[in-house]
Amino acid sequence: MITTLAGGVGAAKLLMGLTRVMKPEDLTAIVNTGDDIQLHGLHISPDLDIAAYTLAGMVDEEKGWGIRGDTFHCLDGLRRLTGSEWFNLGDGDLATHIFRTNCLRSGATLTEVTVEITRALGVKTRILPMTDDRFETRIVTKGGTMHFEEYMVKRGAKDEVLGVELFGADKANPAPGVVEAIEEAERVVVCPSNPVVSIGTILAVKGIRGALKRTKAQKVAVSPIIAGVPVKGPADKLLRGLGREVSAFGVAELYGDFLDTFIIDYADADEKERIERLGVEVKVTNTLMRSLEDKVRLARVVLE
Amino acid sequence: MITTLAGGVGAAKLLMGLTRVMKPEDLTAIVNTGDDIQLHGLHISPDLDIAAYTLAGMVDEEKGWGIRGDTFHCLDGLRRLTGSEWFNLGDGDLATHIFRTNCLRSGATLTEVTVEITRALGVKTRILPMTDDRFETRIVTKGGTMHFEEYMVKRGAKDEVLGVELFGADKANPAPGVVEAIEEAERVVVCPSNPVVSIGTILAVKGIRGALKRTKAQKVAVSPIIAGVPVKGPADKLLRGLGREVSAFGVAELYGDFLDTFIIDYADADEKERIERLGVEVKVTNTLMRSLEDKVRLARVVLE
Repeated sequence: MITTLAGGVGAAKLLMGLTRVMKPEDLTAIVNTGDDIQLHGLHISPDLDIAAYTLAGMVDEEKGWGIRGDTFHCLDGLRRLTGSEWFNLGDGDLATHIFRTNCLRSGATLTEVTVEITRALGVKTRILPMTDDRFETRIVTKGGTMHFEEYMVKRGAKDEVLGVELFGADKANPAPGVVEAIEEAERVVVCPSNPVVSIGTILAVKGIRGALKRTKAQKVAVSPIIAGVPVKGPADKLLRGLGREVSAFGVAELYGDFLDTFIIDYADADEKERIERLGVEVKVTNTLMRSLEDKVRLARVVLE
Repeated sequence: MITTLAGGVGAAKLLMGLTRVMKPEDLTAIVNTGDDIQLHGLHISPDLDIAAYTLAGMVDEEKGWGIRGDTFHCLDGLRRLTGSEWFNLGDGDLATHIFRTNCLRSGATLTEVTVEITRALGVKTRILPMTDDRFETRIVTKGGTMHFEEYMVKRGAKDEVLGVELFGADKANPAPGVVEAIEEAERVVVCPSNPVVSIGTILAVKGIRGALKRTKAQKVAVSPIIAGVPVKGPADKLLRGLGREVSAFGVAELYGDFLDTFIIDYADADEKERIERLGVEVKVTNTLMRSLEDKVRLARVVLE
């Protein structure tokens, strides 16, 4: 049993690699839901969908999200009806949002709907939302506090980050199975995802950090920062906004209290000693995942 | 000011013709909502959409409903998620359903949403739902009572009709503007729509039949039956189910208490005298609308 903490694109790549070197059904992904957003009355769970689509082999690999070859006719229609439309919703993708929203309105939990969706897509890996409760990542900027997707997608992550608010974190409980998946795993893998708004949100759900400290599992993380630059996304801006160092070391500091091993890129080999001083073992390897071979190779290192 | 009572495809054809021979903004269509259905948590208004798409010039003319050239990727996705899917929902079409549902959930009325939709699509004719209240046409069959769309689309109108139930008719009020549109019109045109489940439903909303009797408008109807056969749809099965004659005369009987003029096809000229004995003037013409010219010509007869 391997349990991972996962955000979006970077995590999905490593998950894909892991499913090639172990039995997919022995893998559990605890996925960030802080990016979840209601648009047009639809409940959208970006990271859950990226994980499911990737593991179902249907993700648009070029973009890292959405469904390969999807069309956008509904979005065109919504644009005509509402005058503006900033979030990308593919036609095939919408089926997931419509189905999820309808199930949630009928009283199902996000965990239950996710089981239905992954089963229908033929995904054998267990995908768990970090929480079934409302949890919304908000970014504080000079122009105001906004939903993470608004900061990220609508405004192109161009605002200076003054802070991050995790709305609902004080009340959100881990989804059923989350704490058990951490406690009963041989190994917990923290994917190379945004340490603030993907992994940071998961760690902010009460009970999860405690379970990570308590579990006998080996806890391994992969740095999402290579040579001071995030592989994807605005981790640099967010780390900086929180007064953190934008480096593998900066990330290691955030995980130091529970982490056993940190996997960093060759480009960051000079940070090894600093990180080890946090009490964390360091492995240096190639962490960039471009091809399937890269993903499989990194997955092997993670499981070593 | 011309006001029409309208169902789906047949009505939309005549509406299209009317907008070519008069100012579209002087035309009001009171549209059947008895076919409205909730699917996947979306509020679908088949007849309102047929009217709007037709008048916006975007309808799939071959089918008579939906958007020309639409794709069905979301439907494919829903089929995968739910295992079955019987109602056709095009991707572009879904934008309307999503927008409508979201507005209704936010407290807007169906009338208000319809204004938004028609405005966005550039439709100048006023399209009014017959009611903002819940109203659901149900067909009684040996196998049970079912929603009209279930009888029609899911089961292909193959069940013997034992009766029709208009759920909510006792409580549904005419939508704002409906009674006024009838009272203040020069002419009220009953479109060649199903006399039971399209026009019959409109007439069942309290106050509408009374307004038709009271108004000083000329009241003209076009027969949806030609030579004992409905131009489209299951009007024959429904009339028969209610013990009615499947003929222009059978339809005239249903409208006789308020109608001034009934327009029937040459094929039914021999019914002229029987219909006139109901106290209704009869015009005989070509009522089949295939081409735009047919629609315009019939519209001219209707306005004569």
